[in-house]
Amino acid sequence: MYTCSKERMQDKISTMSKYGDAGHGGITRYSLSEAAIQAREEFIKRMKSCGAEIKTDDVANVYATIKGSDPSLPGIVMASHVDSVKNGGNYDGILGVISAMEVIETITKEKIPHKHNITAMIWTNEEGSLYPPAMMCSGIVCYDYLPEEIRKNFRYEDMMRSVSVLDGSSTFQEALEKSGYKGEKSNRLNPKDYKAMFELHIEQGPILEAEGKDIGVVTCVLGMVNYRIKITGQADHAGTTPMKYRKDALFAAAKVLIGLHEKLDRLDPDLVYTTGEIVCHPNVHTVIPDYVEFSLDARHEDPKVIRQVVEIIENIPSEVEKCSVSAQTAWTRDTVYYDKKLVDYVQESVDELGYSNRKINSGAGHDAQFASYMLPTTMIFVPSKDGHSHCEEEFTPVEQCTKGASVLLNTVLKCDKED
Amino acid sequence: MYTCSKERMQDKISTMSKYGDAGHGGITRYSLSEAAIQAREEFIKRMKSCGAEIKTDDVANVYATIKGSDPSLPGIVMASHVDSVKNGGNYDGILGVISAMEVIETITKEKIPHKHNITAMIWTNEEGSLYPPAMMCSGIVCYDYLPEEIRKNFRYEDMMRSVSVLDGSSTFQEALEKSGYKGEKSNRLNPKDYKAMFELHIEQGPILEAEGKDIGVVTCVLGMVNYRIKITGQADHAGTTPMKYRKDALFAAAKVLIGLHEKLDRLDPDLVYTTGEIVCHPNVHTVIPDYVEFSLDARHEDPKVIRQVVEIIENIPSEVEKCSVSAQTAWTRDTVYYDKKLVDYVQESVDELGYSNRKINSGAGHDAQFASYMLPTTMIFVPSKDGHSHCEEEFTPVEQCTKGASVLLNTVLKCDKED
Repeated sequence: MYTCSKERMQDKISTMSKYGDAGHGGITRYSLSEAAIQAREEFIKRMKSCGAEIKTDDVANVYATIKGSDPSLPGIVMASHVDSVKNGGNYDGILGVISAMEVIETITKEKIPHKHNITAMIWTNEEGSLYPPAMMCSGIVCYDYLPEEIRKNFRYEDMMRSVSVLDGSSTFQEALEKSGYKGEKSNRLNPKDYKAMFELHIEQGPILEAEGKDIGVVTCVLGMVNYRIKITGQADHAGTTPMKYRKDALFAAAKVLIGLHEKLDRLDPDLVYTTGEIVCHPNVHTVIPDYVEFSLDARHEDPKVIRQVVEIIENIPSEVEKCSVSAQTAWTRDTVYYDKKLVDYVQESVDELGYSNRKINSGAGHDAQFASYMLPTTMIFVPSKDGHSHCEEEFTPVEQCTKGASVLLNTVLKCDKED
Repeated sequence: MYTCSKERMQDKISTMSKYGDAGHGGITRYSLSEAAIQAREEFIKRMKSCGAEIKTDDVANVYATIKGSDPSLPGIVMASHVDSVKNGGNYDGILGVISAMEVIETITKEKIPHKHNITAMIWTNEEGSLYPPAMMCSGIVCYDYLPEEIRKNFRYEDMMRSVSVLDGSSTFQEALEKSGYKGEKSNRLNPKDYKAMFELHIEQGPILEAEGKDIGVVTCVLGMVNYRIKITGQADHAGTTPMKYRKDALFAAAKVLIGLHEKLDRLDPDLVYTTGEIVCHPNVHTVIPDYVEFSLDARHEDPKVIRQVVEIIENIPSEVEKCSVSAQTAWTRDTVYYDKKLVDYVQESVDELGYSNRKINSGAGHDAQFASYMLPTTMIFVPSKDGHSHCEEEFTPVEQCTKGASVLLNTVLKCDKED
């Protein structure tokens, strides 16, 4: 078994954390921003020093490839992203890129023989924090392979017109042109030139840490449903409307929300569901709210459980506290199972390395999820301290990061043994 | 008894509704906007044709005065506002100005003798919709007479720096300078030159209509407390955090909100309380909310009931669903009783005119409330259809508007009979 270098991993984690350093432990590194360009330059510099050939595609995804002994074979790609949310941490996304770099470095330094080309890749704009939506460029690249319901959110022309949330006017296309990273469409990841894709990522949840496991062998991306629950009441003056005449949409919404919790809590304990967003109109302290809308996001591997969720939501009472209530599906996704053979390679690698591990599913979306519609794909998780992500507190000890990279390395090498 | 003219009232209502006409039944007429200036010009034109003398003070309040037989006596003022909220209606504020105009016109046309000067007045920026806060210019003019806790919100310098909610940069002071209505500070309403102020207003609630009454004889402005309820949880990923590890601030907030309703509903049935505003962070459908804050506004005439409210709020459990909960007073106001003698004049006028009526309190804030700290003041209410206000559906039949104006006229004349 080969293993990666803790010192090199630490060096890369420390170096990358400077690009977009927000000054208090975390980073803000929007896609194609100056900070993100610095991270890309660091990636390219280090990959070139390993003899990698650098390409970019038409949406600025970067591919650093070391040749295998038979370059006619389709390549193996390891990919993640260098962009972050606002005030994000030093692990989400970037750790997958760092691990891919480390695999390339280890193979090069230790002259590990391999038949296939091996590529470390950066996906552009995974977070979509500056130019929505999230997973924009894997959505574009995998477009033809995505289910229609997902695909419709990633039309190339729409993506190019995505407007900066900061200034409300500059577009993703402008950022792309300005970046210097726009290349040929023909360089895009595709199932003819590549045989497999791997993504190492932090878990973004507390399970591995709570169970004392070093590695999560990811098997699937959870199926999910996404609803908007809409409550309509009547806006009236807070000081002049007796209680008995009121139709308070926020009061009704609170009752609906708690009613949903009570029912959903009786379903399978592995179900996760979230009411994360609420909109209240007019949202003025002296006016009774006439309209409230909240989101409901529910995820489970088993479609039977998801169907139970749907049944509960579709049976919400249509009137609560004199307000009308309705539920509208925003979108749904079936559980996406990662490639069984690749998952087995990950499991074998972890076992052979002797790292503690468990099978785990991915509740979050990743570029790997879109890639899996196009070519054999899987993921490797490492623990997230306290389960935190998308915040400056993100942390994974370097020992576990290195174990993750070692699992990635051995998995890639197992994959390389195939014809 | 004198009565006002329904035809003239209708004409003024129709004319004023053109200024800021939003094209679908209501108006948007921000203070000192072009539409508000047009309404002021209409006011001045009609008042000048009655022989009124026009003055403005340093915050663009407009005073149209017809001389009494003894101009050395302090004057009687009838005032309200011509500005509206966004997509407001044709009655809130403007009906008080129209009624004051109608009183002046009736006195002039019918040559009704009066000793005191009688003034129709426009308060600038009552709604504070473009330049917060509401009741800005009565706050400025009555500043020295306001309780410290209220006064601190109306410092002249702060008001001048109030920034447009539309462009985020232009200030109230700039709007004031530009309006052409900035006059002398010495022209301000004051208790030496004026003996009483009256404000006719729509009820903005459903009570008069529900009870079939034409006129509300207002006795007081309800005492109130205003709290911010704050709930702190932990932001985590919606897809990766098992339910048992969550600290969901929105779920906790819904429980706190309903718990408050349950307790407050057991207090006096005349208590009105509202949770009108909610803020949720980060308010993203894929993230468990870590912070939610909502407003609680409670109003009642009796301070004992308000104290019961405070006791309930201050005894909110400090932890709900693993989230921490706290309550913070935003501001409070004791019940403000209007001038007893003036209230009696209103009651006598209504009774003599034979209009159906009831005593009523004002749950909403009005410029009259601030004026009442400075000089004898009271209000007259007319019904609001379905209790609606601050919306395009605002409506009061012209018959009731005219009855209101007639009550105002006779009340002013009763007041005029004093020395």
